[in-house]
Amino acid sequence: MKIINLDHISYKPLHPAAKRAMTDAIDSDLANPSSQHKSGEIAAEKLDEARASVAALINCDQSKEIVFTSGGTEADNHAVKGAAMANAGKGKHIVTSNIEHNAVIRSLRRLKSMDYRVTSLGVDETGRVNPAEVANAIQEDTILVSIMHSNNETGTIQPIGEVGKICREKKVLFHTDAVDSVGVVPIDVKALNVDLLSMAANNFYGPPGVGALYIRRGVRIFPLLDGGVQEHNKRAGTENLIGIIGMGAAADQARQYMQKWMAHCNRLKTKLSNDLPKYIDEYIINTHPEHSLPNVLSVSVKYIEGESVMLMLDDDDIAVSTRSACATGSLRASHVLLSLGLSHADAQGTLVLSFGIDNSEEDITTFLKSLQNVVTTLREISPLYRKTPSAVS
Amino acid sequence: MKIINLDHISYKPLHPAAKRAMTDAIDSDLANPSSQHKSGEIAAEKLDEARASVAALINCDQSKEIVFTSGGTEADNHAVKGAAMANAGKGKHIVTSNIEHNAVIRSLRRLKSMDYRVTSLGVDETGRVNPAEVANAIQEDTILVSIMHSNNETGTIQPIGEVGKICREKKVLFHTDAVDSVGVVPIDVKALNVDLLSMAANNFYGPPGVGALYIRRGVRIFPLLDGGVQEHNKRAGTENLIGIIGMGAAADQARQYMQKWMAHCNRLKTKLSNDLPKYIDEYIINTHPEHSLPNVLSVSVKYIEGESVMLMLDDDDIAVSTRSACATGSLRASHVLLSLGLSHADAQGTLVLSFGIDNSEEDITTFLKSLQNVVTTLREISPLYRKTPSAVS
Repeated sequence: MKIINLDHISYKPLHPAAKRAMTDAIDSDLANPSSQHKSGEIAAEKLDEARASVAALINCDQSKEIVFTSGGTEADNHAVKGAAMANAGKGKHIVTSNIEHNAVIRSLRRLKSMDYRVTSLGVDETGRVNPAEVANAIQEDTILVSIMHSNNETGTIQPIGEVGKICREKKVLFHTDAVDSVGVVPIDVKALNVDLLSMAANNFYGPPGVGALYIRRGVRIFPLLDGGVQEHNKRAGTENLIGIIGMGAAADQARQYMQKWMAHCNRLKTKLSNDLPKYIDEYIINTHPEHSLPNVLSVSVKYIEGESVMLMLDDDDIAVSTRSACATGSLRASHVLLSLGLSHADAQGTLVLSFGIDNSEEDITTFLKSLQNVVTTLREISPLYRKTPSAVS
Repeated sequence: MKIINLDHISYKPLHPAAKRAMTDAIDSDLANPSSQHKSGEIAAEKLDEARASVAALINCDQSKEIVFTSGGTEADNHAVKGAAMANAGKGKHIVTSNIEHNAVIRSLRRLKSMDYRVTSLGVDETGRVNPAEVANAIQEDTILVSIMHSNNETGTIQPIGEVGKICREKKVLFHTDAVDSVGVVPIDVKALNVDLLSMAANNFYGPPGVGALYIRRGVRIFPLLDGGVQEHNKRAGTENLIGIIGMGAAADQARQYMQKWMAHCNRLKTKLSNDLPKYIDEYIINTHPEHSLPNVLSVSVKYIEGESVMLMLDDDDIAVSTRSACATGSLRASHVLLSLGLSHADAQGTLVLSFGIDNSEEDITTFLKSLQNVVTTLREISPLYRKTPSAVS
């Protein structure tokens, strides 16, 4: 069964180099990197190599600033809770945006129950935060700003460099959830002035459930996982060494081929945007035309439910998503799309189309043909569609 | 380079079945189990299978009670912090022991800074907690008891069934860190009356950096990782599916072959204990003769430093440990051994010898011969040894 994967935001295939590295690691029965005997040292070297590869991907000079985690969610929890709790003496106010990933939103909710105050900023209709509003929101006792680099439902990229500059000037810690950006677009932690940056390996064809948190040297932060002295005392627990080795190998590939990968994805995205009106009408593009990831396009198709489209496309062996896989099971409309000003109905009709290096232009055409049939079928039975005169054109 | 691994507490080789399962998972590019399309469903099935395998290993009827984590440390942090914070309304007192793993000790230290009170119980010279002391320590506002199942430095097993009974009667939540026990000795969460139980895959020849927390149905606990709705809303984050599949495969093997594995390890342990006096004198066995894991023997060799022994054995391609690998880098004497009443000097001379299904009786003999040389050499240059008349016998 060959499935056309247009749901790369949920899962990307492993890069062959990551597969090889992981399979080799499995075969070689590496020891515990914390053990002080020879076999431990061999394992520790592998860990260091992977750390250097990930550091290089985000232009971080000191690989000690990379702390491996069990994924983007742990990195976000660690950054937000760890920084908030370590700096509570200075203040308990945090600034964020309305479109963050649930890992940030719910970490902040947890902190609110511990008497932290959170200012959450809106976004404009293109889905972007206004840096001037961040500057205005920072108060005397603000200890952290957390704004995501790119949004996982729209692909829109935030003005992180400007926010970083403001935070550095105002001496407030700045965290960015860059899970969907790292390995996809160039990220330079120094140029962006970020103190904390979350990433996940699967976003650049590494294994799922592995990630990292960049912690700039000198940043005051508590571990989320207390215990042993692993990860330079910043994250306890025996390392997922096989996964980490896969992340390192994938990071090397992403650094080397990023321009080529970006060009490929941009070509697919342009084709998708250009060809879409030939197949369906009455839709809204939620992705910023300029400031966005090359591999994501969010489309709200009017008068239908995204969920039904997803299931019918699935019958045609095409995988798409209606929203973040993390939010599956929650029946509410996406907080991200509502923040953009979409109606509930339009938000429910949204498809997140995300592609990768394993997709071809032919995949896009196959998808569009299938989408046309699905949308026609669904609109025929949609009371919304029939009742709307403007739709009958 | 063939290394004799007598440091199985730090790392165990992957079981061939776990290797196969992980390699297959790598090859088949599984999707995100949270995705609602076909490929997501296939991944979700794999996740469910692994969950059922782990549940069966600890006699848990409902696999939903198993929450996958990034290892034993996360499971301990989740159990201790999550239960404490979710039940703060009932009280802020916790009972534990002096010999817990740092993942528990340091989680409790974190809670102490949030106004929780902790009563930490001593152990007798065999390293065991007295259940009557646990009963006495429970107060009106006690919300959690956390006592490990077996100790990772001595292998001594605690009277967990008795503690569980007391906690259930007094209606206090009971967590046990069973990281070194699950997959090695039979564990039955129902018979033990535990509410929360931590485990790690590598302890039964699964991959490192993968574990699980058993959360009895109905137990009030907060997630440690907030975010998406994965793991039945108890642990957010895209799953380390490759690692989890490895854990499931390893759990199946452990359940099937546990009696055989135990018999093998007990044979090696008996040989080691019996033969030891033929090779060295003046040592203390810290492991309980009866209530202990089949695969661990802790020996304090007098008048020498364990660290030196470890390094010299390493030259002979034999891996042993002086303490938990998690505590490497910390230069202080082991809190576990001091709790047993050992002097600082004896604690520093301790070797943790832990073996597995990949060891033979020949390995034990090779180790003992090498140990004899090492101990003789080190004692010759030890000022402690020369100054002690009783040692010259």
